[in-house]
Amino acid sequence: MKILKTPPQGMREFTADQKAIRNYIQNVILEHYQTFGFRQIETPCVENIDLLSSGQGGENEKLIFKILKRGDKLAKSNMDDLADLGLRFDLTVPLARFYANNMGQLPKVNKFIQIGNVWRAERPQKGRYRQFTQCDIDVIGDPTYLAELELISATTATLKQFGLDGFEVKINDRRLLMAIANYCGFNEDQAAEVFIILDKLDKIGIGGIKEELAATELDQQQCDTFIEIVSSFTSHTFEDFITANESQHIVPAELLEDLKFVIDTIQKETGSGIDIAFDLSLVRGMGYYTGMIFEVKVKGYSWSIAGGGRYDRMIGRFLGGKQQVPACGFSIGFERLALILEEQGFEIPDSRKRIALLGNKDADSIRAMREHAASLRADGNTVLLDYKAKNLGKQLDDFKAMGYTAFAFVNPGETIELRDLN
Amino acid sequence: MKILKTPPQGMREFTADQKAIRNYIQNVILEHYQTFGFRQIETPCVENIDLLSSGQGGENEKLIFKILKRGDKLAKSNMDDLADLGLRFDLTVPLARFYANNMGQLPKVNKFIQIGNVWRAERPQKGRYRQFTQCDIDVIGDPTYLAELELISATTATLKQFGLDGFEVKINDRRLLMAIANYCGFNEDQAAEVFIILDKLDKIGIGGIKEELAATELDQQQCDTFIEIVSSFTSHTFEDFITANESQHIVPAELLEDLKFVIDTIQKETGSGIDIAFDLSLVRGMGYYTGMIFEVKVKGYSWSIAGGGRYDRMIGRFLGGKQQVPACGFSIGFERLALILEEQGFEIPDSRKRIALLGNKDADSIRAMREHAASLRADGNTVLLDYKAKNLGKQLDDFKAMGYTAFAFVNPGETIELRDLN
Repeated sequence: MKILKTPPQGMREFTADQKAIRNYIQNVILEHYQTFGFRQIETPCVENIDLLSSGQGGENEKLIFKILKRGDKLAKSNMDDLADLGLRFDLTVPLARFYANNMGQLPKVNKFIQIGNVWRAERPQKGRYRQFTQCDIDVIGDPTYLAELELISATTATLKQFGLDGFEVKINDRRLLMAIANYCGFNEDQAAEVFIILDKLDKIGIGGIKEELAATELDQQQCDTFIEIVSSFTSHTFEDFITANESQHIVPAELLEDLKFVIDTIQKETGSGIDIAFDLSLVRGMGYYTGMIFEVKVKGYSWSIAGGGRYDRMIGRFLGGKQQVPACGFSIGFERLALILEEQGFEIPDSRKRIALLGNKDADSIRAMREHAASLRADGNTVLLDYKAKNLGKQLDDFKAMGYTAFAFVNPGETIELRDLN
Repeated sequence: MKILKTPPQGMREFTADQKAIRNYIQNVILEHYQTFGFRQIETPCVENIDLLSSGQGGENEKLIFKILKRGDKLAKSNMDDLADLGLRFDLTVPLARFYANNMGQLPKVNKFIQIGNVWRAERPQKGRYRQFTQCDIDVIGDPTYLAELELISATTATLKQFGLDGFEVKINDRRLLMAIANYCGFNEDQAAEVFIILDKLDKIGIGGIKEELAATELDQQQCDTFIEIVSSFTSHTFEDFITANESQHIVPAELLEDLKFVIDTIQKETGSGIDIAFDLSLVRGMGYYTGMIFEVKVKGYSWSIAGGGRYDRMIGRFLGGKQQVPACGFSIGFERLALILEEQGFEIPDSRKRIALLGNKDADSIRAMREHAASLRADGNTVLLDYKAKNLGKQLDDFKAMGYTAFAFVNPGETIELRDLN
C-alpha cells in the first residue's frame, strides 16, 4: 500500500522554527493572561457526540469530525448511528460542560484560560484549516461589566507583548439588536435573518443592506423602519442616539447606559492604547451570545485579531435548566497572530548561547565531546554534538539555520576553542 | 436530551491546579531537552487511516479511534470502510511520516522533541486513559551510539530537574536477542513468541519462564538451550558472558562490544547519577525496534519512568523502501511524572506576587479597582478583581486556595493597603 507522506487534507505539521514561534506566542499569552488572574484548564479533545450536537455550536455542529463506534457497539449500529464521540469544534462548549461538571469545587467567580486544538470538517483553503489552535479566556460567574472590562484589557495588554499596538475595539449588544428588531415588529426567527444581512454592513454598505432585505420575504415596511434606525446609528454619534432614544423609546434606556459605561470606562483609562467605539453592525456568528459582543482590530490590519461576548444561557442548559450561570469570553486569533509573527520574521528573545561541538567518530572523541558538553550544559548553554562532516561549510550553515551561534572542534585531551558562527 | 456532564469514558479534564503542574513539567522538560540540541516539532493529532494501520504500531493499531467519513464519501461506503482518518496512538509513527515529508529541507542529523496527546481505545482503568500525553525525543539520521548516549543523558538530566535522582538504566539490544534466538534454532515468528515470555522474567523468574515455554508448541530442546543462555546471563556478570561468548560464539562479538562501549561510557561519566546495567530480559513491546533498547527507573519507584530504543527501519518504509534512515528515540512517562508531582503536593516555583483587590459594585469602585490593578500588573504582579462578598472569610479562603498571597480593599479616591493572606 502506498502511504501518503503529507498530513491529511487541511491538517498541518509544524517545523522546529514554526513550533518555536507558536510556543513563544502561547507562553507570552499565558504569562500575561495570568497577571489578570486567569488560570489555565484543559478539557479532552474528544467529547460525547450528544454534547457536541446539543445545539450550542451553531453552524459548527455540521462540521464535527465524528469518531466511529468500536467493536460490538459498531456492529449493532445502523448507518445513522455510527458515531458516539467527536472532536471538539471550539473550546466554549467543552468549557460549559467542564464548569457544570466541577462547579461544586469551584469558587464563585472563575477566570479560565484555555489554549488548545479544535477540529472542523470544512473544505480547507488558504488560512482555513481542519485543525487549528484556539486561545480563549472566560469569566464564569460574574454578571457585571467588570468581566467585559477585564477581558478587553487582558486581551489588548497581552497583544501588546508582540509589538502590536493601536487597538480598535468595536462593541455592540445582542439585547440592543433584539430590541430594535422587536421595535420594528420582527419575531425571533425573522430577527436572525435580518442580523445575518446586517453583519455585512462593513462590506456592502447601507445600500447593499437595503437591496438584500428587499430580496427577502420579510415585511418591507418593517425593513424600512429597521434601515432608518440603523442609518441613524451610523450617521450620528452614540451620544446623539441616546438623546434621540429618549424621545422615541426605540430600545430600553438601561441598555444604552450599560454600553456607555463600558465605553466611557475604557476611554478614560490612559495608556491602554484602545480606541473603543459602538458598532451596531457587529453581529458575530455564534447563536449563544446574550449580551455585549466585541471585536478587536489592530491598526494596519483589516481583519480582527480577537473577539468575544457574553453568553449567560449556555451553562444553564448543561445544568438541566435549573440554574443560570453568567459567562463572558474572549478569544485571540492564535493562527493569525502566528502568521503575522512568521511573516515579520519575528526573532524570539533568547539569551541562551547555542554551541555546536564537532569531533571524530572514535570512542575517545565521543567521550571527550560528551565531557565538554556536560560542563557547557551545566552552565545553561545549548550544546549540539555532531561529527565533523566532509563538507564543513554546509554543516556550519545548517547549524546557523538552527540558531547556533558558536562552534568548536573537539580533540581528546585538548581544550576547546569556541569560534563565532557568523 | 440529557447531556452527561462528565468527560467521555477514559478521557480526563484538568483543573487549574492540575494544569499548572502539567504545564510546569512540560516547560521544564522542553527547556532541558533544548540544552541538548533537541528542537520541538508538532504533527497533527489526526492522520490518514492508511498511515496509522501500516503495521508500525503493533498492538496499538487495534486501538485506533477511527474518524467517520463525511458526506458523499460516507454514503458510498460499506460497513468495513467507514473511516478515512484516525487519532494518532503514538508520536513515533507520525514523526516517521513527518521526516519522510520534510527530509529535503532538514539537516543530516535531527534532534526532535514532541510533546502531545495520543489516543487509544482501551478499556479505561486506574492509571490507563484513552487520551494521554506523550513526551518523546528522537535522533534521526545518526547511526552511531552517540545518539543513544545523548538520549540517556538528556532524559536523566531532565528528570533531575524534578528532584528525582538515582537512575537505574537497563540496556539490551534487539539484535542480541535475535542472535540468541537464532543460535537456539528459532525462526523469526518463534523468536517473537519466546520474547513475549522472556519479557516476564522480572515477574515470574526463570522457573516461570521455563513453565511458560514448556506450555508452548516450540521445540523443547531449543527452549532448553535458550533457558541455559538466559540463566548464564542473569547469574554471571556481563563481563563473564563476554568471556564465555569468546569460546562458545553464541552471538557476534561486535554486538557485545557495542553494548560494552555504551555501558562503560555512561559508567565513567561522573555526577550523572546513572547506574547502567545490561538486562537480557528487557524486550519492550514495540515491534519496530532494531537495535539497543532502554528503560529508566528511579530509585524508590518500581515502574520505569522512561524508555526507548533504536528503530532504523521504520522511516525507510515511508520512503518506499528505497532508503534507510537511522533513528533512535526516548520517551518520558509524562503521566507518571505528573502523578508523582501531584501526589507529592509539588509546589511550582513562582516568585510572582498574587494580589486580590476587593471593591463595591458601583461605577466609581469598578474604575478605581481597574486603576490600581493596571499599575500593579505593570509591575509584573498577578491581580484579581472581585467584589467584596458577604462571607469575606470564605472568599479569602477561595483566594488562598488559588494561590493568592495578599489582598486589599479598594475605595475610590483612597490609597490601598495590602494585607497578607495567611
